[in-house]
Amino acid sequence: MAKIGFIKLGNLGMSQVIDLVQDEIAAREGISVRVFGTGPKMGKGEAAETEQLKEWDADFYVMISPNSSAPGPTAARELYKDVPCIVISDGPTKKDDRQALQDAGFGYIIMTVDPLIGAKTEFLDAVEMASFNSDAMKVLSTCGVVRMIQEELDAVAAQVDEGKSGKDLELPHILAKPEKCIERAGFNNPYAKAKALAALHMADKVAQINFPACFMMKEIEQVALTTATGHEMMRAAAQLAVDAREIEKANDSVFRQPHSKKGVQMTKTALYEKPQ
Amino acid sequence: MAKIGFIKLGNLGMSQVIDLVQDEIAAREGISVRVFGTGPKMGKGEAAETEQLKEWDADFYVMISPNSSAPGPTAARELYKDVPCIVISDGPTKKDDRQALQDAGFGYIIMTVDPLIGAKTEFLDAVEMASFNSDAMKVLSTCGVVRMIQEELDAVAAQVDEGKSGKDLELPHILAKPEKCIERAGFNNPYAKAKALAALHMADKVAQINFPACFMMKEIEQVALTTATGHEMMRAAAQLAVDAREIEKANDSVFRQPHSKKGVQMTKTALYEKPQ
Amino acid sequence: MAKIGFIKLGNLGMSQVIDLVQDEIAAREGISVRVFGTGPKMGKGEAAETEQLKEWDADFYVMISPNSSAPGPTAARELYKDVPCIVISDGPTKKDDRQALQDAGFGYIIMTVDPLIGAKTEFLDAVEMASFNSDAMKVLSTCGVVRMIQEELDAVAAQVDEGKSGKDLELPHILAKPEKCIERAGFNNPYAKAKALAALHMADKVAQINFPACFMMKEIEQVALTTATGHEMMRAAAQLAVDAREIEKANDSVFRQPHSKKGVQMTKTALYEKPQ
Amino acid sequence: MAKIGFIKLGNLGMSQVIDLVQDEIAAREGISVRVFGTGPKMGKGEAAETEQLKEWDADFYVMISPNSSAPGPTAARELYKDVPCIVISDGPTKKDDRQALQDAGFGYIIMTVDPLIGAKTEFLDAVEMASFNSDAMKVLSTCGVVRMIQEELDAVAAQVDEGKSGKDLELPHILAKPEKCIERAGFNNPYAKAKALAALHMADKVAQINFPACFMMKEIEQVALTTATGHEMMRAAAQLAVDAREIEKANDSVFRQPHSKKGVQMTKTALYEKPQ
Amino acid sequence: MAKIGFIKLGNLGMSQVIDLVQDEIAAREGISVRVFGTGPKMGKGEAAETEQLKEWDADFYVMISPNSSAPGPTAARELYKDVPCIVISDGPTKKDDRQALQDAGFGYIIMTVDPLIGAKTEFLDAVEMASFNSDAMKVLSTCGVVRMIQEELDAVAAQVDEGKSGKDLELPHILAKPEKCIERAGFNNPYAKAKALAALHMADKVAQINFPACFMMKEIEQVALTTATGHEMMRAAAQLAVDAREIEKANDSVFRQPHSKKGVQMTKTALYEKPQ
Amino acid sequence: MAKIGFIKLGNLGMSQVIDLVQDEIAAREGISVRVFGTGPKMGKGEAAETEQLKEWDADFYVMISPNSSAPGPTAARELYKDVPCIVISDGPTKKDDRQALQDAGFGYIIMTVDPLIGAKTEFLDAVEMASFNSDAMKVLSTCGVVRMIQEELDAVAAQVDEGKSGKDLELPHILAKPEKCIERAGFNNPYAKAKALAALHMADKVAQINFPACFMMKEIEQVALTTATGHEMMRAAAQLAVDAREIEKANDSVFRQPHSKKGVQMTKTALYEKPQ
Repeated sequence: MAKIGFIKLGNLGMSQVIDLVQDEIAAREGISVRVFGTGPKMGKGEAAETEQLKEWDADFYVMISPNSSAPGPTAARELYKDVPCIVISDGPTKKDDRQALQDAGFGYIIMTVDPLIGAKTEFLDAVEMASFNSDAMKVLSTCGVVRMIQEELDAVAAQVDEGKSGKDLELPHILAKPEKCIERAGFNNPYAKAKALAALHMADKVAQINFPACFMMKEIEQVALTTATGHEMMRAAAQLAVDAREIEKANDSVFRQPHSKKGVQMTKTALYEKPQ
Repeated sequence: MAKIGFIKLGNLGMSQVIDLVQDEIAAREGISVRVFGTGPKMGKGEAAETEQLKEWDADFYVMISPNSSAPGPTAARELYKDVPCIVISDGPTKKDDRQALQDAGFGYIIMTVDPLIGAKTEFLDAVEMASFNSDAMKVLSTCGVVRMIQEELDAVAAQVDEGKSGKDLELPHILAKPEKCIERAGFNNPYAKAKALAALHMADKVAQINFPACFMMKEIEQVALTTATGHEMMRAAAQLAVDAREIEKANDSVFRQPHSKKGVQMTKTALYEKPQ
Repeated sequence: MAKIGFIKLGNLGMSQVIDLVQDEIAAREGISVRVFGTGPKMGKGEAAETEQLKEWDADFYVMISPNSSAPGPTAARELYKDVPCIVISDGPTKKDDRQALQDAGFGYIIMTVDPLIGAKTEFLDAVEMASFNSDAMKVLSTCGVVRMIQEELDAVAAQVDEGKSGKDLELPHILAKPEKCIERAGFNNPYAKAKALAALHMADKVAQINFPACFMMKEIEQVALTTATGHEMMRAAAQLAVDAREIEKANDSVFRQPHSKKGVQMTKTALYEKPQ
Repeated sequence: MAKIGFIKLGNLGMSQVIDLVQDEIAAREGISVRVFGTGPKMGKGEAAETEQLKEWDADFYVMISPNSSAPGPTAARELYKDVPCIVISDGPTKKDDRQALQDAGFGYIIMTVDPLIGAKTEFLDAVEMASFNSDAMKVLSTCGVVRMIQEELDAVAAQVDEGKSGKDLELPHILAKPEKCIERAGFNNPYAKAKALAALHMADKVAQINFPACFMMKEIEQVALTTATGHEMMRAAAQLAVDAREIEKANDSVFRQPHSKKGVQMTKTALYEKPQ
Repeated sequence: MAKIGFIKLGNLGMSQVIDLVQDEIAAREGISVRVFGTGPKMGKGEAAETEQLKEWDADFYVMISPNSSAPGPTAARELYKDVPCIVISDGPTKKDDRQALQDAGFGYIIMTVDPLIGAKTEFLDAVEMASFNSDAMKVLSTCGVVRMIQEELDAVAAQVDEGKSGKDLELPHILAKPEKCIERAGFNNPYAKAKALAALHMADKVAQINFPACFMMKEIEQVALTTATGHEMMRAAAQLAVDAREIEKANDSVFRQPHSKKGVQMTKTALYEKPQ
Repeated sequence: MAKIGFIKLGNLGMSQVIDLVQDEIAAREGISVRVFGTGPKMGKGEAAETEQLKEWDADFYVMISPNSSAPGPTAARELYKDVPCIVISDGPTKKDDRQALQDAGFGYIIMTVDPLIGAKTEFLDAVEMASFNSDAMKVLSTCGVVRMIQEELDAVAAQVDEGKSGKDLELPHILAKPEKCIERAGFNNPYAKAKALAALHMADKVAQINFPACFMMKEIEQVALTTATGHEMMRAAAQLAVDAREIEKANDSVFRQPHSKKGVQMTKTALYEKPQ
């Protein structure tokens, strides 16, 4: 029985499903999941309260937030530095910063492909926010990122099942760039793979477009046009991801990796094939 | 300052963003959000642990889960029956059952349009699950459901700001059928509205397709074909929702309702217009 | 030589091609077809005149109309109750009503998937009517319904060729729901099949949307929005049907069943294959 | 009260709905429609039997068939030469031949845009036939041809209502080329109109592609490729027609011309507008 | 070492890439290319100046222009009649005219599928012109025309490499109609081939639509609508060409024919296959 | 009368139409264009021969090539340093390098949005090359780059017409990044503009994807996947560009800027509007 605790500070695209990926039909035995989240905000105040989940005494924790170098996530890590904890974020991407995380005992998966939203009052409302997250999730799911998260968390859970705990758990240290993510997606058709890889690169690019809009631009037309551009690119990326999967469907070659009741990762490809 | 606690048992499409919709750019003052979730499972054991969030002493709670008549959610409600709590779920839909919820003091929003996933090992893995949730969110966001949730939660938060509390808070009691949701979407073009309404009806229909696959069918081909059919319909619904929004974009008539820093719901329509 | 008489009262999607499906290139020997139709109306007056075709003395008749329980079709059946006659309609769907038809000696194919049009002056003109019928036919043709009709009528014609006649002819008794129709479509790719099945379910749903608009709503906005919604769903269903067939084309696996000059049902799959 | 008799010999795209276009919701008073059809075949034998409808003594007749210069239709016209009769066909297109029709007292609408199907056993089965007719109808309906037929038949019916009959009825004499049809379509946006006009030109071209396949080619690969090409062009034309109408929907400028109960041609444009 | 001189008078779709097709990665040894062009105009003045390239003393020349029977191209040919020269144009198409070209010693490839642009001030500006050329190139590239040019020019270059020169060089004499072009495209899937062939037929048809607009119409609405129609058809043709190639990608069966450094035409089909 | 000489070394997307953009219908008086090109290659040998066009004594020259810092273009510039010459290329982008160009007397337009092709034998053949150039041209034309080139060249030609020459001509110095190009496109709808801007950003990104494939990767799978990814992104960008223009068409707000016979830049917006 692996107990896994998820701490969600603010929101990334992946935050939407990260606590679900190991038990997609809610029938897996031997796994227990709890989530503590702080909603949209991720300041120091929010960070302080995440300690609450530590009492649950999970076998390992997953802490997901945008920009894990920000004060809030940094403060939260301070609370979890003595237990096994995997940081999942869109940054830091620099090698030294990542090494520092690792040296502090944390695992990490830094996903440059989880796109920065156009977070400006001039553009974003709840509907646009949710719609953008839908597009992000289409790319994250279809193009290998969801599976990477699932496989990596399953790998740690498997260690727990083998009796390992605490410092003995080997945690992942991955810079999840497009080229790395795509290899997890299991595409059979190479053009489908190329489309999906293009989608990941576009998701990556969205941050470069939205960043100045979020943090530097002031003028309403410029802000609105730029964030709209970022969201249009995300929309186009989602469409490419759909196109990629449609190719696999047309070939009846969608790779699937469902969990058995016992938690075994089975696989299947043809739709009418039994998972094994 | 309104404190809002979200309890997530299992997963609905709406669960992905429900704690984010009142503060889409994470800059709203006077609102504080905490989330306690149990991951995919929603049994009695999970329900028992939700009590933890009660200690936070929120001004009101939002409890979201599939099928709120199931034992887990029912047990969880027992814990929250003496505080203001809004149940958000895809059932029960029958009038008497909803009245019973109301009589017990709960608010509710029952969304028949939050589609049942094809939860069978023969079809669903983490990738398919996340991809389906992306399609669900595209419909929920664009076709009025996200805005309904946002407006209703904002309305309760506003009462808190006015000094109301406990039993004095008026909670929503809504059966969110397609016809009701679409009125919240703010479409200006009537054909866009019709497309979005069709998408909601399709999301509604998905449950009718997936239900027998989830709970009655055994044979692999039948299970796989039926769940795939449900997911194809959801995909088509997401596409219709996209088409609807594209029409509004083409007319520069997308209705937006961002929150100001002070939490005021501003509105804007033309992209270069300032929200007011 | 089989003589087949078609009586068309009012219009269903299938009415457009039902007299053509057994002889698609107009070169089949040993079959003779006559049609008597009453245009859009299907009242008792129209029904009375259908008797005219009886003089032709066909080996069997096919009577197609919307709602075969309505007074007109009921009256028309009275005229044909003593000759072999197959009722093709979108209702009745209830078991007892269908049994009554069978007990009265009629064959039937009740197609819940032939969608009810949005027949309101506020929305429908000749162009919209014809365009909707185009969408309906795209689903009916590609998703198995046309082939079901063709195969069932061919089966009765084959009995005639074998010398059977009158009461000895075995007539079909089929409730043509989505799951039954799809099996006739001959899809090779399971996702194509799932898309087509979703299209049939959507065609089915259109009636539920258009019915209140046709018979209960009065207010112009509500009528216009609701019928437009029904037609948008039908449009989306047609697109899904197209997508399904495109997958088969991409795999060069379109199943075809042309008639030879002698009336034999040949089959072929690869485009450059000779039918046999 | 106008009585209108439709004689259908063989099948054109327009044959599918021609008897429905004057009474799209089946509620028009003062009009009575009867149809006599011969199914797919249109030989001399079939032609002879069409005389039956003459007994009904319609105010005027509409005789629709492919190639009205073929022996069957020619023979059928011989039977109807002494009553008001409008020939609707895809040929003859030459001026002299059309003048001869007119001189013989017939009205005519020759639609070069009603596309010749790829009628070869190597390609066409019932499903492909019906699917092609769906594509044809999408172009015919949306791009002005259905409305031309409706308006022209309504004009003759109006003369009947005014008391005219027999030779005094002015019948239409129209060569329905793309440029003429498009003017009936009522497009408001000029690019929508251009798309629809392109679709009509493509429908026109389909005949030039399918003709040699139908009547001259023998070799299986050549026949199959050529007919498939004709049908692909028709599919593309249908898509263009859809795109054109979507533009009008996006502008809420779809021109509609529904019949009132009294048979008046009302018009409306905005979806929520009342027809007048 | 083959020296190939290209003379471009005015612009055809193919003019954009004709000097590139034999050396797509600019790494081919043993080939040398020079281009002399006159921009948009192709009058006698421009023609006279083309003599300049003759000094380069190429092994053979390729002269590309619209309508090679026009005065400019005719005058230019006069200058090149004593050296090996291949005329590439969209006309003349008549057999006698082509024979005359051949009798005068010229090779030719007359591409009826290189579409006439809608060259009217009322419609065309630089953007529309370039956008149309993009659509033209999509069809020319994907549907076999580019490969035909490449193979034919390579064949002459190969003769040069074998030591032939002047009158001994065998030049191509091809009327490049849709049916001929498509055979060079290398499609594996027959429906992809049919789509591409339909696209070529549509490109062919564009000239018939744009010709009267370019040379006969005066009235602004008629000119604008007609040229817009021609360009919409070209757009639809480009889309069909894209669809055709997507099918081949989905099957990983895109036929490729890259040149080796030594100028050998290698081939490959699967994306991960090495060209050989 | 302005004489403009174009020197084309190797190929950029823009090379395809650059000599056509000032005279789109080939009817402009007072302008004379000559082109000298070297085909795909752009080495020092090719550069040397470009001197030939100098004899024509143009009023100004336009030298277009990929990477203008490469030895070939650098050598060619040496030949043209004493006459007015505008360098058009995709590099150099660095400020100092551009300043050096300017200091040497050259004008320049450096288009980061003209995408680097995937120039590897393992992927590129003539068909793929031409198809990619089609996609590039769709973005360049629709998203403002073609118009920027046209306006800038027209501005210099206008100076010639005013009597300026040689060093007195003011040449453009533009780093054509996405944000700059989009302002030339003339979009009226802000979402269309956002889509087109996203397309430009994607074209920009293509170079970053293809660069390592072109110059660093060796392994066949990696090369093929990476170049295919670059081309898929370009395809997606072209589609976005199409979508953007379709929005303007749907609003009948396509901005056009045709040249009058006298060379005046007229403008028009509604399709049926006369250019003025």
